[in-house]
Amino acid sequence: MRKIWPYRTPGLPDELFIRGGVPMTKEEVRVITLAKARLAPGQIIWDIGAGTGSLSVEAALVAAGGVVYAVERLAEGVDLIEQNRAAFGLDNLTVVQGEAPAALVSLPDPDRVLIGGSGGGMVEIIQTAAARLKPGGRLVINAVTLETAAEALGTLKKFFSQVEAVQVSIARTMRAGNRHLLKSLNPVTVISAEKGES
Amino acid sequence: MRKIWPYRTPGLPDELFIRGGVPMTKEEVRVITLAKARLAPGQIIWDIGAGTGSLSVEAALVAAGGVVYAVERLAEGVDLIEQNRAAFGLDNLTVVQGEAPAALVSLPDPDRVLIGGSGGGMVEIIQTAAARLKPGGRLVINAVTLETAAEALGTLKKFFSQVEAVQVSIARTMRAGNRHLLKSLNPVTVISAEKGES
Amino acid sequence: MRKIWPYRTPGLPDELFIRGGVPMTKEEVRVITLAKARLAPGQIIWDIGAGTGSLSVEAALVAAGGVVYAVERLAEGVDLIEQNRAAFGLDNLTVVQGEAPAALVSLPDPDRVLIGGSGGGMVEIIQTAAARLKPGGRLVINAVTLETAAEALGTLKKFFSQVEAVQVSIARTMRAGNRHLLKSLNPVTVISAEKGES
Amino acid sequence: MRKIWPYRTPGLPDELFIRGGVPMTKEEVRVITLAKARLAPGQIIWDIGAGTGSLSVEAALVAAGGVVYAVERLAEGVDLIEQNRAAFGLDNLTVVQGEAPAALVSLPDPDRVLIGGSGGGMVEIIQTAAARLKPGGRLVINAVTLETAAEALGTLKKFFSQVEAVQVSIARTMRAGNRHLLKSLNPVTVISAEKGES
Repeated sequence: MRKIWPYRTPGLPDELFIRGGVPMTKEEVRVITLAKARLAPGQIIWDIGAGTGSLSVEAALVAAGGVVYAVERLAEGVDLIEQNRAAFGLDNLTVVQGEAPAALVSLPDPDRVLIGGSGGGMVEIIQTAAARLKPGGRLVINAVTLETAAEALGTLKKFFSQVEAVQVSIARTMRAGNRHLLKSLNPVTVISAEKGES
Repeated sequence: MRKIWPYRTPGLPDELFIRGGVPMTKEEVRVITLAKARLAPGQIIWDIGAGTGSLSVEAALVAAGGVVYAVERLAEGVDLIEQNRAAFGLDNLTVVQGEAPAALVSLPDPDRVLIGGSGGGMVEIIQTAAARLKPGGRLVINAVTLETAAEALGTLKKFFSQVEAVQVSIARTMRAGNRHLLKSLNPVTVISAEKGES
Repeated sequence: MRKIWPYRTPGLPDELFIRGGVPMTKEEVRVITLAKARLAPGQIIWDIGAGTGSLSVEAALVAAGGVVYAVERLAEGVDLIEQNRAAFGLDNLTVVQGEAPAALVSLPDPDRVLIGGSGGGMVEIIQTAAARLKPGGRLVINAVTLETAAEALGTLKKFFSQVEAVQVSIARTMRAGNRHLLKSLNPVTVISAEKGES
Repeated sequence: MRKIWPYRTPGLPDELFIRGGVPMTKEEVRVITLAKARLAPGQIIWDIGAGTGSLSVEAALVAAGGVVYAVERLAEGVDLIEQNRAAFGLDNLTVVQGEAPAALVSLPDPDRVLIGGSGGGMVEIIQTAAARLKPGGRLVINAVTLETAAEALGTLKKFFSQVEAVQVSIARTMRAGNRHLLKSLNPVTVISAEKGES
C-alpha cells in the first residue's frame, strides 16, 4: 500500500519505515539532523551511508523538485531503501550502491550532504564533500561513536569555518501499568558545517 | 530588518529570535515538539504559554493559510512575540494576552494545541483542549518539571487514547581552544496525544 | 566460590552479582544512591524492594557491625538476594520476604532507608519510613518512572525538610572494531531526604 | 573550623569544598570516578590536574595509611587544594605544583592514577602512568571534551588490555514553587583502565 505523509513537518514515526535488521536513525534524531541540514525544495542532497533510507525519504519529501542520492554499500541496505522509496512513491530519491567517496564521483554537486555512516572513510568523504558542496552548502554528520565524533570535528574545522555539534540523548516513555518508564535511546552526536559563499 | 527563513525544515537558530529575559524553547527541542505536533498548511494552532513566541513563529511559517494563536499572560512575553512576529513578517500569527483556559474561549477550534507553560492550570487546559480539538487533532506539551510531566501524562490518558512522551537531553559543544566541551541544556519532556477521529 | 571485594570504595561491577531475570540497579546508579545515603559502619539499613540485592550487598559491605534488612516480596528476588549474600559471605544482611510497609513492622528502627521498588505503596512506605527513621536518618529512593519520581518528591516534602533529587543518565561504551559506541542505560531519578535531629 | 566527614561512602556534597573560580568535579561524577578507581587504604594515588582538590580529598579520606599526590600546575589550584586539605585535616594529601608528566618524576610509583586535567599532555601522561603504575594498578580519566575522550581511549588501548568508559549525565532538580525543574550538569566521560598483574 502506498504510504502518504500528509504533514509538512518532518519526523515520520519509526514504524512507518521498512527496517529489516539495519540500524535506523530514530525519529527524534532525524528531525534534529534535518533541522541542522536546512533543507528546501529543489536541493541536490547526498545521503551517505543511508542505511534503511529513513533520512533519505524524509529529505526527499522536503526537497520536491530536487534529488536525494542515497549512497549505501550493503546490498541489504540498498534493497531496504528501494522498498521505502517505493512505499512512499518518491520519484526524487535515487539509490546508489557503492562505497563513498568512490561512489560520489558521478553524482551532481550537492547543496547538502548527510553522512550517517562512513565505513571508515570519514576523512576522505569530508574532503570530497568540502570540495564538491556548492557555496552556502551544508553538511551534517551523525556520529554514534566517540571516535567518529572527534575525528569529524577535527577534520571539518580544516575545511569549514562554521562547525557546530550537539549530542542528542532521547529517552522514550513506555507504559508500565499506570506509570511510564523512561527507556533511553543511544546518544548520537549531530555535527554540522556550512561552506562559505565563496 | 525583515527576517526571512528560506528553508522548508523547521529549526530556526535560537539567535534569530528576540529573546529578552524570557526563557525560550531551544532549537533542538523546538523541532522535536513540531515533529510530534505534525503541522500542515491551513491548520488552526493554539500555542499556550507562548513565551518568546519562537514556537509560534515556527508554527506560523509551516501553517501558511492557517492561524497560530499565541496565548501568553505576561505583558513582557506578549511584547516579545509581537516583535518576533513583526521581524518575520508573519500575517498568520495572532497574539492573545490572557490566561488559559479563560483566554481560549473566543478562539476557533484548533487542529493543534501546543502547551509550553500552563501557569498551574494544566489540568483545566488539557480538559479544554480535549473538548475543543477537532477530530484527529494533536496536542503537545513541553514539560520542564518532573511534576508537570507526571501530571500531564496522568491527565492526558483520561482524555486521549494515544499518549506518548520523550525526554530530550541536548548537549551542545563549545569550542575550547582546539577541543569541544559538552555543555548541557536542561532536559525537556515532550508529551503528545492525538484525538480519535470520532 | 566466595567472592571478596578488596576495595573500600563502593561500585562493584554488575557481573559480580547473580542476577536471574530480575532488574538490577546498575553500578553507576548504585554508587550515587549509596553516596546520597551516606552510609557508615554500625547502621541499621532497610533496603525496600531489594530486587537482586546488589544494593543490599554494597550497603552490608560498608555497614560492618550494623545490619541491612533486604525486604522483597517476590520469591525469585528473595532467592537471588540469599545467593548474593552467601556469595559475598555476609553475616550482616538479613532477607525479609514480604510487602512493605507491612513487612517493616518487626524490623528495628533504621538509620537509613533505601527504596528501589514500592509495588505501588510508595506513599505508605514513605510515611512509615518518616516515622521510624532515627533523627538525622536518611532515605533514598530510586525511581524509574516519571510518576514515581513526582509522587515521591510530593510525598517527601510533607515529611522532610531537606529533599533533593538527581536524574542519572549513563551511557556505557561498547567496542565496535577500533571505535567505541555509546549505549545508554535507562535514566534513574535518585531522590534523597534527611530527617531533622529532633 | 575543621570539617569532618563522618560517613564511609564517598560523595561529599559540593558545598563542603572551598572552590574559588576553579571548575570542580561534581559530587555525582566524583563518586563514579572513585568507584572506577577502586580505592583502598594504603594506596599511593596520583591525582593529576587536581583542580580544587575535591577528588584528592575524597581519595585521601579513603586511602588512610597511603598518600594522595595532588598535582596541579596553576598556583590558584594549588592554593585551593591546600585550603581544602587543611579544612579536612588530612595528613596524607601532598600538593605538588607542576606540570605532568615532568612533575611526576619524583613521586613514588602509584597504585592508582586519576587524571582530571592534562593541559594537552594526555598522551605523555598516559604513557608515564602506564609505565609507573604497579601491577594491578588502575587509571581513571575524566574527560570533558569529545577530543580528550577519544584521544584517551585511543591511547589507553595501546598500553592497557582492559579499558572501559561511561558518559555520565546528571540533572539536578531545583525547586520552583511546588515543582522541581531539571537542571543539567555538563556530561563527563569517565574512562578507566587496569594494568595486568605482570
